[in-house]
Amino acid sequence: MAAIGRQVFNTLTYQVKHGIYLNTVRAFSSPSTFKYADLTVEQTKSPQAKPTPDKLLFGHHFTDHMLEVDWTSKNGWGKPHISPLHNLSFHPAAKVLHYGIELFEGMKAYMGVDGKIRLFRPMENMKRMNKTAKRCDLPTFDGEELISCIKKLILIDREWVPKAENSSLYIRPTLIGNDPTLGVSKSQQALLFVIVGPVGSYFTTGLEPVTLMADPKYVRAWPGGCGSYKMGSNYAPTIEVQSNAVKAKCQQVLWLYGEDHQLTEVGTMNLFMYWTNEEGVDELITHPLDGLVLPGVTRSSLIKLAEEWGEFKVTEKPYGMKEVVKALKENRVKEIFGAGTACVVCPVKEIVYEGEVLQIPAVGQPKLSMRFFKELTDIQFGRKPSDMVEIVE
Amino acid sequence: MAAIGRQVFNTLTYQVKHGIYLNTVRAFSSPSTFKYADLTVEQTKSPQAKPTPDKLLFGHHFTDHMLEVDWTSKNGWGKPHISPLHNLSFHPAAKVLHYGIELFEGMKAYMGVDGKIRLFRPMENMKRMNKTAKRCDLPTFDGEELISCIKKLILIDREWVPKAENSSLYIRPTLIGNDPTLGVSKSQQALLFVIVGPVGSYFTTGLEPVTLMADPKYVRAWPGGCGSYKMGSNYAPTIEVQSNAVKAKCQQVLWLYGEDHQLTEVGTMNLFMYWTNEEGVDELITHPLDGLVLPGVTRSSLIKLAEEWGEFKVTEKPYGMKEVVKALKENRVKEIFGAGTACVVCPVKEIVYEGEVLQIPAVGQPKLSMRFFKELTDIQFGRKPSDMVEIVE
Repeated sequence: MAAIGRQVFNTLTYQVKHGIYLNTVRAFSSPSTFKYADLTVEQTKSPQAKPTPDKLLFGHHFTDHMLEVDWTSKNGWGKPHISPLHNLSFHPAAKVLHYGIELFEGMKAYMGVDGKIRLFRPMENMKRMNKTAKRCDLPTFDGEELISCIKKLILIDREWVPKAENSSLYIRPTLIGNDPTLGVSKSQQALLFVIVGPVGSYFTTGLEPVTLMADPKYVRAWPGGCGSYKMGSNYAPTIEVQSNAVKAKCQQVLWLYGEDHQLTEVGTMNLFMYWTNEEGVDELITHPLDGLVLPGVTRSSLIKLAEEWGEFKVTEKPYGMKEVVKALKENRVKEIFGAGTACVVCPVKEIVYEGEVLQIPAVGQPKLSMRFFKELTDIQFGRKPSDMVEIVE
Repeated sequence: MAAIGRQVFNTLTYQVKHGIYLNTVRAFSSPSTFKYADLTVEQTKSPQAKPTPDKLLFGHHFTDHMLEVDWTSKNGWGKPHISPLHNLSFHPAAKVLHYGIELFEGMKAYMGVDGKIRLFRPMENMKRMNKTAKRCDLPTFDGEELISCIKKLILIDREWVPKAENSSLYIRPTLIGNDPTLGVSKSQQALLFVIVGPVGSYFTTGLEPVTLMADPKYVRAWPGGCGSYKMGSNYAPTIEVQSNAVKAKCQQVLWLYGEDHQLTEVGTMNLFMYWTNEEGVDELITHPLDGLVLPGVTRSSLIKLAEEWGEFKVTEKPYGMKEVVKALKENRVKEIFGAGTACVVCPVKEIVYEGEVLQIPAVGQPKLSMRFFKELTDIQFGRKPSDMVEIVE
């Protein structure tokens, strides 16, 4: 794609030099990415009231504007457009409604203590989004261009970025195949859109530890499948299981895999265990990127932080319930916690497994997860110098 | 659900007897199904031109009308409504666009040689649709009521039912979760809609045998997943694989499972092999309903037919590529074919597997698959008395 991009650029340079219309060039070259430089903006005439920061239910509030870019296999990417938040209209045969041809990302913009708005490692999301697009046979694009468009969207709706502690502006880039024909095949049309909305602290009472339902009967991902891509199709099969977990008085599902009941993910988060391993060494362990788990941005950030600290071993390898149960009996488990964009970290207090309720010791004082939470939120809210990407006019 | 239905009915009977408003009762009881009796119809004022029967590309043509029924967790099912075919409008946060909360069915209406229009075992599709709805945490309904509504839709668009040989009216009942909020949880809103459209013979030149790509690297379904439900999420992961198959000059993907490379499905069809087994017995074999394959209506129809004939053994059990390769070498494979609503049967001529092209012998004279095809289409097109469901005013 980089080569194609360069070729288009050279063609453009040549044609602009020689006074040939840009539009003709674009239609001819079927652009392999859209461009921030082509962005058009239509401002709302009826701004909505903003919700009060203490009543921010996740995913229920959206700002006044959204971003859209069309794609067709014939003409490539169109021009990005920001307009007032509106409903999307699809032919009832649109492939996205039948075959789940859809993917998304979850990111956040943070209002720093210095009043500056920042993004947390946005190119990580762009890389993953393009990988997932490829796996869905949907078009890829230059992530830098989308980030530039998203920055503009956030600047337009900057008053919506919450100033309250641990609140942020959630960003949902989405790519769907809206080809209006039935038949399980590549979508010849696509729509990329981004909606954003204020979200509060994930848990109403801070880092409240959760109880997990671990039932090996349900399997989220498997070798040869798409568990490591952020495709919509990974989520529909989990809805009924999550409802069952709630009925069983658990908050989340612990996804197990294989005969040894490997701990892979929790709800929609990566999972970490901090323990003293069989060799007596303090270790932070998480399932490796073997296709069964999502390569989370928070996951990689925590691993990087822990490696920088160098205070304990950091290991990416499968670990099963048998090892966890044994370690719990031998008092070797320090903490278990989920990690994701929504909550940063999410301590686990109990696992309901094979008729037993396993108590995870660190309830009340989840030291390592708290340290991770403080470190990452210090970076995100600008309390610490970092690689955060500032959004400026 | 039957018990709830009866209870509502008794309540209704009581309240109608005592002169209490029906609307109040309905709002109060959150109906567990919609009713054909409530169906309203809005006819189109601008009927479209019908495509010529020889140019019917699958999934590209739709009739003048569609059916819709709304559902909310608060009010239950609304009233079914038939109206001119139109685009659907969703909030950009609608769960169906992010988490693949969607399912469908594929059925057909046939114009019989006697000029009567018939459905093929429609309640089989309704049973499967309700099972899938439950697995998606979407609302269930009384299948008889939906079939009555679909019959009405087909009667309104009866001129669209093709009269050409092996052509039919494809019916696509679809159920999606359109709750306008982000967050991986049960959709509190749903839309059931049905679109229908004329389709031709699946293959342009009759029962043209296909070449399959069999690559164990890709796995369609797995134990603990949703492979036996007709959910949209089963299809998105197959799109890129199917594109790869086409690039490798194959027509379809043969989905393998497990270390023994079990033959599970082909493309979006069930798979059958007719062979002389290791014991020297003629046998029709297909993967069992163990969660890895879709319980196809054509699949069960072929099994039933073969059992009625009683001429060879019929077996539902897993079989692997090793057995197939060995049987091919020993000249024991008679035929391999797919089976589904779209094509009835689809003979296989070659399997590309581990760098080899395996030739399936029955090319040119696929006797059993041809016999199945004739028997089933004789039933479907009314050339033979059967359990077909006639559509009458």
